[in-house]
Amino acid sequence: MCEANAYVYKDGKEELYLENVDIMRPEGGKIYLRNLFGEQRVFEGEVKEISLLNHKIVLEKR
Amino acid sequence: MCEANAYVYKDGKEELYLENVDIMRPEGGKIYLRNLFGEQRVFEGEVKEISLLNHKIVLEKR
Repeated sequence: MCEANAYVYKDGKEELYLENVDIMRPEGGKIYLRNLFGEQRVFEGEVKEISLLNHKIVLEKR
Repeated sequence: MCEANAYVYKDGKEELYLENVDIMRPEGGKIYLRNLFGEQRVFEGEVKEISLLNHKIVLEKR
């Protein structure tokens, strides 16, 4: 499967935020995320980097 | 492989912008994209939606 895990970057570290993300959509300064299992989270911040080959989405607070 | 194709959404249609995207990074109002083959493009706009299961990144002009 080609989903990715979302992490929050903080103080040089990456903390797991949501596993198996399918959908990611910026919405007015927030990032809406939904995973394979229908779990949804809204992150208040922005995307720092996405690497699909590494299955990794890195988010960061503004 | 788990890369995705990037499309630009315009007037209700999606036009292919870059195939086999690996890295995507927002950079000061632009989106830096790099694909599997090292090809790089910088899109002046924002991410509208990403669906990893559909291998699809949709970009939109601001």
